[in-house]
Amino acid sequence: MKSVTLVLVEMIYLDHAAATPMSERVVVAMTPFFAVDFYNPSAAYLPAVEVKRKYEEAKSELGRVIGAKGSEIVMTAGATESINLAFSAVAGKVLISEIEHAAVMGAAKRGGEFEVVKVGKDGVLDVEDLKGKMSPEVELVSVALANGEMGVIQPMTEISRVVKEERVRRLREGEKRSIWLHSDASQALGLVDVGVARLGVDMLTLNAAKAYGPKQMGLLYVGSEVRLTPVVVGGGQELGLRSGTENVAGTIGFAEAAKEAYAKMAGERKRLEGLRRILRGKMEEVEGARFLGNEKKQLVNFVSMVVSGVDAERVLFALDNKGVMVATGAACAANKGGKSLALGALGLTDEEIAGSLRLTLGRLNTEENVRRAGELIVEAIEAERRRNG
Amino acid sequence: MKSVTLVLVEMIYLDHAAATPMSERVVVAMTPFFAVDFYNPSAAYLPAVEVKRKYEEAKSELGRVIGAKGSEIVMTAGATESINLAFSAVAGKVLISEIEHAAVMGAAKRGGEFEVVKVGKDGVLDVEDLKGKMSPEVELVSVALANGEMGVIQPMTEISRVVKEERVRRLREGEKRSIWLHSDASQALGLVDVGVARLGVDMLTLNAAKAYGPKQMGLLYVGSEVRLTPVVVGGGQELGLRSGTENVAGTIGFAEAAKEAYAKMAGERKRLEGLRRILRGKMEEVEGARFLGNEKKQLVNFVSMVVSGVDAERVLFALDNKGVMVATGAACAANKGGKSLALGALGLTDEEIAGSLRLTLGRLNTEENVRRAGELIVEAIEAERRRNG
Repeated sequence: MKSVTLVLVEMIYLDHAAATPMSERVVVAMTPFFAVDFYNPSAAYLPAVEVKRKYEEAKSELGRVIGAKGSEIVMTAGATESINLAFSAVAGKVLISEIEHAAVMGAAKRGGEFEVVKVGKDGVLDVEDLKGKMSPEVELVSVALANGEMGVIQPMTEISRVVKEERVRRLREGEKRSIWLHSDASQALGLVDVGVARLGVDMLTLNAAKAYGPKQMGLLYVGSEVRLTPVVVGGGQELGLRSGTENVAGTIGFAEAAKEAYAKMAGERKRLEGLRRILRGKMEEVEGARFLGNEKKQLVNFVSMVVSGVDAERVLFALDNKGVMVATGAACAANKGGKSLALGALGLTDEEIAGSLRLTLGRLNTEENVRRAGELIVEAIEAERRRNG
Repeated sequence: MKSVTLVLVEMIYLDHAAATPMSERVVVAMTPFFAVDFYNPSAAYLPAVEVKRKYEEAKSELGRVIGAKGSEIVMTAGATESINLAFSAVAGKVLISEIEHAAVMGAAKRGGEFEVVKVGKDGVLDVEDLKGKMSPEVELVSVALANGEMGVIQPMTEISRVVKEERVRRLREGEKRSIWLHSDASQALGLVDVGVARLGVDMLTLNAAKAYGPKQMGLLYVGSEVRLTPVVVGGGQELGLRSGTENVAGTIGFAEAAKEAYAKMAGERKRLEGLRRILRGKMEEVEGARFLGNEKKQLVNFVSMVVSGVDAERVLFALDNKGVMVATGAACAANKGGKSLALGALGLTDEEIAGSLRLTLGRLNTEENVRRAGELIVEAIEAERRRNG
C-alpha cells in the first residue's frame, strides 16, 4: 500500500509593492464591459454613447480622488506610459531624485539634459540640493511621492515650494521658460493623500495595478497649463494626447479601485500600521538588521531592511519554499533582476544590497499571517547565517 | 387602472469592425490572473515565476497563430501603440496607402518624410504606383492587410515582392539602407490567414479587441533583423522595446482569442459569407445603393455601401431606435466623429460619404437577426428618402 503525504503550505504574500490582486469590487465593476457593454465608445449609436458616458463618469470619479477634473486626466496603459507622457511636456533640462523608478530614469536620459538631486541616508530628498541645482534652464522636476524600495514619502509640499519660487522668480525677471513638477504617486495611492492641490504638483502619475485595480492601467493628471506632446499618436481619443480605443473596462476598474482605496484609507492605514509594528518588532530580533527609511516618513506598509552578511536571495528562495513571498533589492523587479539602483544611490554597498529585504504589507495580510511570516523570516535568516558559518 | 406597455427591442449588432465582445473562453482564461495569479512576473518567488512562464507560453501561442516565435513578439496596449512602435524602426522616408488608419497617418506625419500610395476605386492598392514611388530613400512601407472602412484585403504578397526587389537591388548596388514592410492586420485576425511568412511582412500589428479578446491589448511582430527604438522607456520588460509591468491577464486573453479565432476561422468564414449574401441581397433592393470594395477582395464580414441622397447619420439614429447598430463614414469612429478620410481618398464626394453605411457581421449575428436587420435597414432608408421627398 502506498501512502501519500500532502503538505499544505499557507501562502503569505509580503510583496504588495510589486503587485496587488484585483479587489472583488473591481472585478464586479469591470465584468459588464467585457461581453455586454463592449461597444466602441466612439461609435454613434446609443449603447455606445452610454458606454462613453460611463467611461467619462469613471474619469470624473478618478478626478475626485485626486481633486481634479476628469478632463485633466489622460488614461494610459500604466505608470510607465504616464511618466513617458509627463516628460513629453518639456524639451529642456530636468531634475530627478537619485532614487527614481527606471521609467523616470529612462525618460530623463532620453529627454536630454538632466541632473540628479541627492537624497539623505533615509531616502528623503535633500531640498537644499534641489535649490542648489535649480536654474533658469530647468523645465521639469520629477520626484516620486513614495519610493518603491523603501516607501520613503517625499516632502512634496516643500519641493513644490521650490518650484513655485523659481516660477515666481522667472515671472518677475520676465523669463518665458515654464517649469513643472511631476510626481509618480503609484506606490502611494490608498496609503497617503494624493490630492494634487495639497501635493502642489502640475502632473501626477497613478497606477491601478498597485492599488487592487487592473494591470496595464494608469493615468496622468495634467494641470490645465501644461502642454504635452503625444507619445502615441493616432485617433487622439484622450484629449488628443493619447491614442487608441479607450479601455473602458480598465478605466471603470481603476475608478472603482481608487474609490475603494480612498474610502478605506484611514482604516487600512491604521490596520497596516499595527501589522507593521508586529513585523518590524519581530525583525528587530534579527542580529545585524538595519532598517531603511524613517518610519515617520515612510508608507505604513513598508518594512525595508538590510541584514549584513546574509544572501537575501537565498533567504527569499528558502521563504518561497515555505510559501512566504518577499522581495530583495539584490534581484529587483524594477531593474530586470539586476541589483536595485535606488539602494546603490543611498550609499549601500553591494554586500548590503545583497542582504536587503523588502516586506510590503497589504490587504492579503492578517495579524496571524504576519506573525507567522515574521517567525519564518527570522528562521530563514538564521538558517542562512548558520550555513555561512 | 394604469397600463404599462413594455416594448422589447431585440438588439442587433452590425458593427463588429468597431468592437467585439470578449468571448466566454477569453474571460474564463483571464479570470485566474485577476485576483489569484496576480503576481508581478518579474518577481523571484515561484508563484511569480509560474505566472511569467504562463505569460511566455501565451506569447508563444500568439506566435504560433502568425507563424513566429514568442521572442519576436512585443506585447503592447493596442494596435495604435504597435503601429507607433513599428514606425520607430525607421528615421527615413515612409510609404503608406491612402486609406490607412489614423494611427498610421499620425505616425507617418510625425516621422517626417512620407508619401501616399494610391488605391483603386475598389480600395485595392495600386502596386504600379507603389513601384513608381519606391526609391533608395524609402525605409518603411506600411499597408493595412484589411482596411477598416471597406474591409478591402490588400495584395500583401505582391506588395512584399516590390519591397524585396528593392532590397535585392540595394544589396546588389552596395546600398546600406534597409527597408521594411509593416502591415496592420487588426481587422483581419480570424477572417484571413495572418501568417507573417505568407504575407511576407517584417512587422505585423494585431489587436485583440477586434477579435473577441480584451481591449487595450495589441502586439507587434518584429522580424529578427528589424531594430526598433522604444516608444515607451523604463524597465524594458518587452525585449527592451517596451516598458511597463507585463499585462499577464490581457496577454493570456489575447492568446486565447487568437487561438479560438484561428480554430474557428474556416467555419466562421463560411457562415459569415452566407450571412453577407443574405444582407447584401437585401441591400440590393435599395434604389441607388452602390457597394464599396470588391467582394472577392474583401473581408467576408463587410457590407460597405453608399446610398446617394440619403443622410446615413439619420438612418443610423433611426436604426438605433430599433436596436440595430451600424456605422457610417459620415461619423467615423477612427476620425473622432469627423467624416472618414479613407472614403474621401477613394474619391467619394462629401454627399456620398454622408450616405455611407458600414455593416460588419460577426459572432453576434445569426441568419434570423441578419434578415431582420436587413428589413429594418431598408425600411429606415426608405423612410429617410420619403422625408427628403
